[in-house]
Amino acid sequence: MAMPSGGTAIRQVGEFPLIEILGRVAGDHSGGRAPLRMGDDAAVWKPRPGRRVVATTDLMVEHVHFRLDWVDWETLGHKALAVNLSDIAAMGARPSVALVGLGLHGYEKDREVADLYRGMDRLGARHGLTIIGGDISSSPAAAMIAVTVLGEAPRSGQLMMRSAARPGDVIAVTGPLGLAAAGLRVLERQLLTLDGEPSMREAFNRPEPRVREGRLLRRLGVRAAMDLSDGLLGDLPKICSASGVSAVIDMLRIPIPNAIRWAFDDWFDMALRGGEDYELLFTAPAAVFARVMRTFDRAGMRSPIAIGEIVAAGPDGPSLSVRGASGRVRDIAPGAFSHFGG
Amino acid sequence: MAMPSGGTAIRQVGEFPLIEILGRVAGDHSGGRAPLRMGDDAAVWKPRPGRRVVATTDLMVEHVHFRLDWVDWETLGHKALAVNLSDIAAMGARPSVALVGLGLHGYEKDREVADLYRGMDRLGARHGLTIIGGDISSSPAAAMIAVTVLGEAPRSGQLMMRSAARPGDVIAVTGPLGLAAAGLRVLERQLLTLDGEPSMREAFNRPEPRVREGRLLRRLGVRAAMDLSDGLLGDLPKICSASGVSAVIDMLRIPIPNAIRWAFDDWFDMALRGGEDYELLFTAPAAVFARVMRTFDRAGMRSPIAIGEIVAAGPDGPSLSVRGASGRVRDIAPGAFSHFGG
Repeated sequence: MAMPSGGTAIRQVGEFPLIEILGRVAGDHSGGRAPLRMGDDAAVWKPRPGRRVVATTDLMVEHVHFRLDWVDWETLGHKALAVNLSDIAAMGARPSVALVGLGLHGYEKDREVADLYRGMDRLGARHGLTIIGGDISSSPAAAMIAVTVLGEAPRSGQLMMRSAARPGDVIAVTGPLGLAAAGLRVLERQLLTLDGEPSMREAFNRPEPRVREGRLLRRLGVRAAMDLSDGLLGDLPKICSASGVSAVIDMLRIPIPNAIRWAFDDWFDMALRGGEDYELLFTAPAAVFARVMRTFDRAGMRSPIAIGEIVAAGPDGPSLSVRGASGRVRDIAPGAFSHFGG
Repeated sequence: MAMPSGGTAIRQVGEFPLIEILGRVAGDHSGGRAPLRMGDDAAVWKPRPGRRVVATTDLMVEHVHFRLDWVDWETLGHKALAVNLSDIAAMGARPSVALVGLGLHGYEKDREVADLYRGMDRLGARHGLTIIGGDISSSPAAAMIAVTVLGEAPRSGQLMMRSAARPGDVIAVTGPLGLAAAGLRVLERQLLTLDGEPSMREAFNRPEPRVREGRLLRRLGVRAAMDLSDGLLGDLPKICSASGVSAVIDMLRIPIPNAIRWAFDDWFDMALRGGEDYELLFTAPAAVFARVMRTFDRAGMRSPIAIGEIVAAGPDGPSLSVRGASGRVRDIAPGAFSHFGG
C-alpha cells in the first residue's frame, strides 16, 4: 500500500540530478565486468569469455500491470526486475546486467523513484545482477517501467526451450499456482480481512524469480521450460504447440494452496488461468526428473511437483486434457491471458 | 502524415498472432549469431569472440516524443531505432541486436504495427542489426516504444566517452544543427508552405544515426564524443562537466542551414538549444582532427565541422563561451532540454 513519503517531486528535481541520485542507489554487483556507469550514451559490459548472451525485455504499464495505490515503490521495483529475471531463469541462464527505462508523471518524489531503484537493486544483488544504464522520460498519461535484462549461458549445449518437450516427459512446476491471481483479486476487491491475504498480495506484488532453479534444471538435463506468466492453461499450450505434442494434466496433482480453495469459488480458474505466478513449468524424461528431485532435495530446495505427462499429439494436433478425480480424461480449453483479447 | 491504412485492429488480431506477424517482418541480419527468434522467454545472441557489449535503451512516449498524426508508422519505427543506434555510434561501437517493447492502445491495425517493425528492420539491416526479441503490452493511455540496442566493441582500447575531452582539443560536429528543431516547429504549427520544410520534417522524423562515422572516429583516435540529442548548448556542457574542462564555440563556424535562418527569427536558439539532431559531437587533438578530415574525405563521407576548442576550466569550474562575429568572447547559458524542467 502506498505510504506518504518525504522528498521532492522530480519535476522540481530535474532529469539529470535524478539520474545522479539513481546512480548512487544502484550498486556494482558485476565483479568489475560493467566498468562504466550511468553518464555516457551507452553502458559497457564484458560478458564472461565464451558465453552466449540471453536477453529479454518487459514493459509494465500503470493501470495495466500495476496501480500505484496497490504497491509501494520498492516492491514495484522488485516486481519489474523479477518478471525479467523469470524469463532468464526459464532459459536456464544466469542474469548479469539490466537497463531500466522509466516513464514518470513528474509528480513522483525523488525518494520514491530511488525506492523503485532500490527494489531492483536489492533483488539484483541477490542474483549478481547490476543495473548498468537506462532512460528516464516524462510520461504524463501513465507511468511505465521498461526493463531489459541480459544474462549469460554457456556457448555450447542446449538452453531450455518451449520446443523441446517429448512424449513420455513428466510435466512439472516449481511451486504452487494461483496465489498471484488471488492476490490480484484481493487488491481489486480490497479483501483485507481474508485469511492468508498477505501471502496472496505478496505473491502478486513480489514474485520470486526461480533463477537458481532454472540454472540447476538446465544443468541436470531438462530441455523444455518456460515461466508461468499467463497461467498453466495459457502457457502449457505454448509448449505443446512449439513442440508438436499434447499434454495430460492430473487434476489432483496441481499444487493449489488450500487458502485459495477456501476463499474463492472460482479457485480452479484462478489457479489454472490466473497467471503471474512466475513459477517455472518444465518437462523432462522420467530419469531426468528423478535426478531433479534428488538434487533439489539434497540442495535443500523446494521439490518440483509433477502434474502430468506429455503424450503424442493426436490427428488434430496438439491438445490439452485433464484427468479428474475419477480418472476420466477430458479435453480442456486452453486459455492464455492476452493483452488484446484475441 | 498518417495515411488511411488497411488491416485489422490488433485488439481483434490478438497478442500472439501479432507477435507471429512481426516475427515475419523482422529479418535475420546477424550472420547466424542470433539463432533463436521470437517465441521463447528470452532471445539468444552470440557476440563475436573477445568483444565488449555496449548497451543502450530509449523510451519514446506518445504526446511526449511523437504524435501519431505527425508521422507514418514506418518512419516512427525508423526513429525509435535510430535514436538508440545514435547512442551506440557515440561510443564508437557497432550495433548488433535490438529488443523492442511496444505499448499499444489496441486500435492500431496489424498492418500499422508491421510497418513500425519494417521501419526498424530496414534501418537495422543497413547497419547489420537484428531484432531478436521484445514485448507487446496494452497501453490504453498513451502508446510507447521502448527499444534496447546491444552493440559490440573491441575488448581492449578506449571507447569514446564524455569524460575524455582535453584542453587544446578541437570541438567538432558531424553535420548541420537545427533542422530537427525546425521540423518540430513545422509540425507543431503546420507550416506546410515553408521553403525547405520537407527536409526539416525529415530531419525530425527520420534522423540518420552516425554509426559509420562513430566507428571511424574511434578508430582514428578520437576519445571524447556524444550524440546531440539535447542541443549543442545542452550537450556540450555534459562533456565539459564530465571532463573538467571549458569550451569556446566560434559563432560563425556553427553549421546552421540558411533555410532555418531565413524562416525563423529564433534560429540561433533553434540550432543551439533545439535538440534531436543526432549528429555526433566530438573533441580531438588537432593532429587527430586533421587525420579525421583526410580520412572522411578519402572515404567520400561528409567532413566534420570544427566549431571551437576545449580550454582549461577557470577557477569557477567548467564553463561555456561563444566567440561572436566581432571576435569578442562572452559566456553563454547552458541549456539542456530536460524532461521535467529542472
